[in-house]
This record gives sequence, structure tokens and C-alpha cells, in this order.
Amino acid sequence: MHSQDNPFEAFVDGPRSTVSPTGKGPLSGLTFAVKDLIDVAGVPTGGGNPDWERTHPVPDRHAPSVARLLANGAEMIGKTRTDEISLGILGENVHYGMPVNPASPERVPGGSSSGSAVAVAAGLADFALGTDTGGSVRVPSSFCGLFGIRPSHGSVDFTGVVAQALDYDTVGWFARDAAMLETVGTILLDTDEPHHPVQLLVAEDAFRFADDDIASALAEPLSRLAAVIGSPRNVTVASQGLSVWQGAQRVLQSSQAARHLGPWLAETNPRLAFTVARALLRGQAYTDEERGRAALMKREANQRMHNLLADGSILALPTTPFVAPLRTEAVSGYDRDRISCLTSIAGLSGLPQVNLPWRRSDGVPVGLSIVGARGSDRTLLAIARKWEEAGR
Amino acid sequence: MHSQDNPFEAFVDGPRSTVSPTGKGPLSGLTFAVKDLIDVAGVPTGGGNPDWERTHPVPDRHAPSVARLLANGAEMIGKTRTDEISLGILGENVHYGMPVNPASPERVPGGSSSGSAVAVAAGLADFALGTDTGGSVRVPSSFCGLFGIRPSHGSVDFTGVVAQALDYDTVGWFARDAAMLETVGTILLDTDEPHHPVQLLVAEDAFRFADDDIASALAEPLSRLAAVIGSPRNVTVASQGLSVWQGAQRVLQSSQAARHLGPWLAETNPRLAFTVARALLRGQAYTDEERGRAALMKREANQRMHNLLADGSILALPTTPFVAPLRTEAVSGYDRDRISCLTSIAGLSGLPQVNLPWRRSDGVPVGLSIVGARGSDRTLLAIARKWEEAGR
Repeated sequence: MHSQDNPFEAFVDGPRSTVSPTGKGPLSGLTFAVKDLIDVAGVPTGGGNPDWERTHPVPDRHAPSVARLLANGAEMIGKTRTDEISLGILGENVHYGMPVNPASPERVPGGSSSGSAVAVAAGLADFALGTDTGGSVRVPSSFCGLFGIRPSHGSVDFTGVVAQALDYDTVGWFARDAAMLETVGTILLDTDEPHHPVQLLVAEDAFRFADDDIASALAEPLSRLAAVIGSPRNVTVASQGLSVWQGAQRVLQSSQAARHLGPWLAETNPRLAFTVARALLRGQAYTDEERGRAALMKREANQRMHNLLADGSILALPTTPFVAPLRTEAVSGYDRDRISCLTSIAGLSGLPQVNLPWRRSDGVPVGLSIVGARGSDRTLLAIARKWEEAGR
Repeated sequence: MHSQDNPFEAFVDGPRSTVSPTGKGPLSGLTFAVKDLIDVAGVPTGGGNPDWERTHPVPDRHAPSVARLLANGAEMIGKTRTDEISLGILGENVHYGMPVNPASPERVPGGSSSGSAVAVAAGLADFALGTDTGGSVRVPSSFCGLFGIRPSHGSVDFTGVVAQALDYDTVGWFARDAAMLETVGTILLDTDEPHHPVQLLVAEDAFRFADDDIASALAEPLSRLAAVIGSPRNVTVASQGLSVWQGAQRVLQSSQAARHLGPWLAETNPRLAFTVARALLRGQAYTDEERGRAALMKREANQRMHNLLADGSILALPTTPFVAPLRTEAVSGYDRDRISCLTSIAGLSGLPQVNLPWRRSDGVPVGLSIVGARGSDRTLLAIARKWEEAGR
């Protein structure tokens, strides 16, 4: 299944592109991979869709996020596969296929930053850039057993990246250990220095929302987190229900994606997976009234998260409500929506979230997430490192 | 653009399949091509979509229409390109590209039986099989300057053919001259012997519906038709408006296509052109009430056509409301619908229709159509031959 040049099918097809570092720094000697949604000068940006690649010029400059990494000593070793136009959560791509999850090869890797997660999980790169609009870094982190961050919205320059829905789009990254995740953060993030977390909050509604085996598998990593931060307090995040938050995020995100991609769809008539075309058409079909109601819900969700976290508290929740589904399994729309019920908490409010990887007793990855206030990215990264150290 | 093995891009990619005749007969020495929606034993049926081909077994028997042609002496020389799953009217295919119209290379060939029309127009085959659900033989006949027939619904066995909407699907064929079209008809049709037409009716509303240059270009072939049949009488076909007939056909045809293709879409999640996915989703979205109203309109249209033609009268109309659009032109939904306003007359009522090819003063093909009562296929073919002879 995987060729010698592309083990685990992490990279895009064709000759592997590499870019040497442009300077020296904290990342010297490290390698990284780049999701094929992010511009690397001289390399086509495929966006996971052959017609996207065909209808866009080869970029003549690096995305600022890539340029920073190169300037700080890292070597770019390849563009990675993605769900087409980032519209997917499992790692599916009808044009190019699904990468192999190194942590559990019979299971999906998660997406849409599938190849970046797989490249890191397989040890092919030290770290990798992805994007996260509705969960595209967090879900593959959880499924592949990686540390991964979706930063505060707006904290990492999104220039030179294929947009899905700019109000939610972020550039995130993956690493096998928390120290590496944090080191990359010192380069990419302009947010505040880490501060000491005030209180650990446990999202009861999110834990109840996950399958029983997830909640029990996360008991140990959660108590280790309590050892790092302090004794936890249970909270209900969404009094309206997580499904209501998810519904609002879906309306807003997919309306914006449909509006943004509309001219390209009309001009190109691209080949798309039937389900991707369907999602875009649903995005076009929402009424102004539906969008208006979703915007009000977003406002209330933002206020709620501010009330919970503005004092420096940290929220813990399962990253995904279940482990990576089997590749052979048809995943229902219901279960896809269950995933975004959890990712909508940080997504709708633009907050940073870090996945702390763990293993179920049978070795299959599960993920515990921490979410902090806007701009607390480096605090989350420091907590992740201390959490990792506490396990040694 | 066109390879040596596939001039005019008429044939499907890959090694060209040929099948020798299985008997001798009226077609001995003749060659034919087959739309890639129709089964030829041992050759994949691609349906114009890579995922259709991938998810269907290679047929182990010929479609009965193909078997009849082979048994009567004809040689099969290749499978031809089609709009994917026959869902198109211009000859577009985002996966494999558009064949070149030999009569007017800067213009589209028409579809969905694009490759079959092009193979015949280019002289690569003596005749070719296509399918016609909503105009897929009639439109490329008109655009490529060919004789072409959409037979009475049910008069040619549809077994072994990729269905779009079985209540409207037919197997039709193309030829460069009317004698050839008729000869093939004697093999494929089990309908009545030709009879003498009673009256020529001219569809005033259909002529008014076409562009002015079409109506004027068709004046001469229409008077030649009057010379064959007798002096014409003007009629209005659709008192409700052709757009109302077209609307009913669209609701019924695309609902049936969506229902029929639904399980394959759900199971395969195929790569589709965005516009094709959109059309299928619209087909899924019609309500029972909309389908019910369309079915009543169909009943009234059938009754109207019966009243006009059951006595043996023949209806003349422009095959398409304009000549083939330029390949570089974006054809609006409005103009695509204009085409089906004319094709819905025979489509909705299941009647046979033959295109009589003509040329505008600048040499671009235009098409005059004749429509007869159900089962009058051989009468239409005989009229076409006499019309052709009258021009010598």
C-alpha cells in the first residue's frame, strides 16, 4: 500500500519537495512537514484536490509560518496529504487516498491535517504544520496519539494558506512530545508568556458526551493534569447543549466556506467527493435568519467561555468522543457531528486547545484536551510539557 | 490535443476495444461505436466516471442492442466518451475531457452521447449507439450535424445499459446519412412498418422558442419536409408553455435519477463534477407534492401529444434552440434549460424523434426534428430518408 518514498502515505504524490533552512536557531537540525494547504515557494499548493492545484498558480513565496520555521533552522521535508479543501475530519480523500495511522494502522488517521499527523506519528518529521478550522489538528492529534495545538484564532499568521472559513481558520502543529510542541510555539506564537494556571475545570457535559471507554481511559491522564494544575472543579460548559453550539458553528463555518469557495466552484466546476459537494451546497442553502441565530449563539458561547476562563482557569475535556474509527467502518453523519460537538467549544470561541495524547488499555490512542483563554497558548504548551514531565 | 489513436477524443481512454461480428447480415462490412454506458462483454462499462467503472464488474455479456448489431454483421470498434452517468447535455466531462466536434471544432459536440456523435461525424465509425433520456442523442445530432434517433420509449431493449431514469431512458443511434440510420433501425426496432404520414404539423411555440437565426436557417429544410409530407399546419404544442413541460420533465427525471443512484452515491462517495452532484442533490430534494404535480403535467402532455399525432401526423420543431455553443463559452443554467424545453416534448411523452441535419449559412450545424406517435419510429426513419433523397 505505501511506496518506499511515501511510507504511510503521509506525503502528496509526485516528487517530494524539500526546502533547506534559511537561518539558524532553536529549530536547527529539526525537520518538518507542511500540510498541502499552506504555501511553500516553488511547490504547488494542492489543497487535496486536483482541480484546486490546476487552477491556482504555484506560490512564489512561503507562507509566513513556513518562513519563520525555515529562518529558525528547521528543514522542510515535504507537503502532506489533506482532506480536500480541508473539508473533512477523518482523513478521507477520494482523489489521493487516506494516509495510514501509524499508531493503529487499521484505524483512520483523522483529518483534515491527516498527512501532517501521520508524518509526525511515523517519525518521518520532527513536527508538522496543519490547519484547524473545525478540528483538523485536534482530531488527528487524538486519533494518532500526538501532541497538537490549535492556537488562539489570529495568533499565527494565516497568510498564504488555503482558507476554508477565515473566522475559524488557524495554523496549528503536531509533535511527538510536548517539549517539541512548545519549542515550535516559541517561534510561531506572538502571544503572552506562560502564566500559572488558576484552576482546573473539568467539562462534565463534554465527558458525558464521550463514549464510556473514553471517559474511563482519560481518568489517569486527568488526575495527572490535576497534579500539575491543582484539584479540579466540575463545570457544565454549554447550558444550551453542546449540540446547539455545534449547530451554530456548522451554520457559520459552512456558510462562510460556501461563500468563500463559491466563485471557484462556479468557475472551475471541480471534481469533488459527493459528500463534500453536498456539504458546500448545504452551506449555500442556509438562510440569513439561520445565520443570524447562529451568530447570536456564538456570542453567548464566547461570553460563557470568557466567564469560565478569563481568570486563568484551564478547561479539560476529551478531544474526541471516541477513538479513531476502523478504516472499514462507514462513519455516520451523526458520529461526525458528535466529534464537532466537542471541537466546537474552542472553535466557536476562537480559543487555543492542546491535545495531550494517551493510550487506551489496548494501546489505541485517546486524547485529553486543555483549553484556555484567548492568548493563553503558551500557558497551554507549558502545562502540556509539565504534564508530560510528571509522567516520567 | 487528440492522440493518433483517439482522433477527436471520441473514444474512452486506454486500449481501444473492438469486437468482431458474430454473424452476417444487412450490417456486414459496417463499423459502429458504443457509448460507454452500454455493456460490451469483456470491456469495462465506465459510465464516464472513474468511480463508476471501479465499483462495477466488467460485464460478461453484451447489451442486447449490441448483440443484435454484431449478429447482423457489424463490427464494434470502440467505447465512446460520455458526460458522467449521462448527466449532461453539452459533452462535458471533468474526468476525461470533452470530445472535439468535427463539424465545428471550436464548438461543443453536445452530450451526453458526445463521443458516439463525434466518432460518426469524424467518419471513424459508420454509425454509433448512444442513449437519450433528456436529449442525449438529439442534442449532439443537432450540434454535430448528424442524423440521429431517439426511439419510442421501450422500443429498443435497455438491458445492459447504465440507467439514469428508466421511465425516460432510451437507446438511440447516429449516422451520417438517413439510409444508414434507417438500416440500423430495421435491426434494432420491433415497431411497426413505415406508413404514409397524414399531415405535417409545425410546432409554432417551439420555433418561436429558438433563436431567430435557427428559425430562419430551418426554413429551407422545413419546406423540403413539406415537399415530402404535404403542406404544413401550424400548431401550438404546449398551451401551458414549454417551460412548464420542461419543469415537469426535470422534476420527474432527476427525482428518478437521484433515487436510482442514491445507494451508489451513499456507498461509493464518488468523485463527481460539482454541478453534477448539485443536480443529483436537487433531484433528492423534490417533495412528493412537486413530483405529484409533475406527474399530472406529464399526463396532460401525453394526452396533448396523442391528440396531435395519433392520426399519423408528424410534428416538426427545431432540435435545439441555438447552435452548439463555443467551447470557451460558459453556458448558463438558463440556456441549458432552454435546450430541454425543446427536448421535453418527446421526452416527457416517450415519443420517437429524428434529427435532420442542416447547415447555417456559415456552415455551423443546425437541426430540424420530426416527432411522431409512439411506435412510428420506422415512419420517421423513412421520412428522413425521403427528405434526404429530396435534396439530391
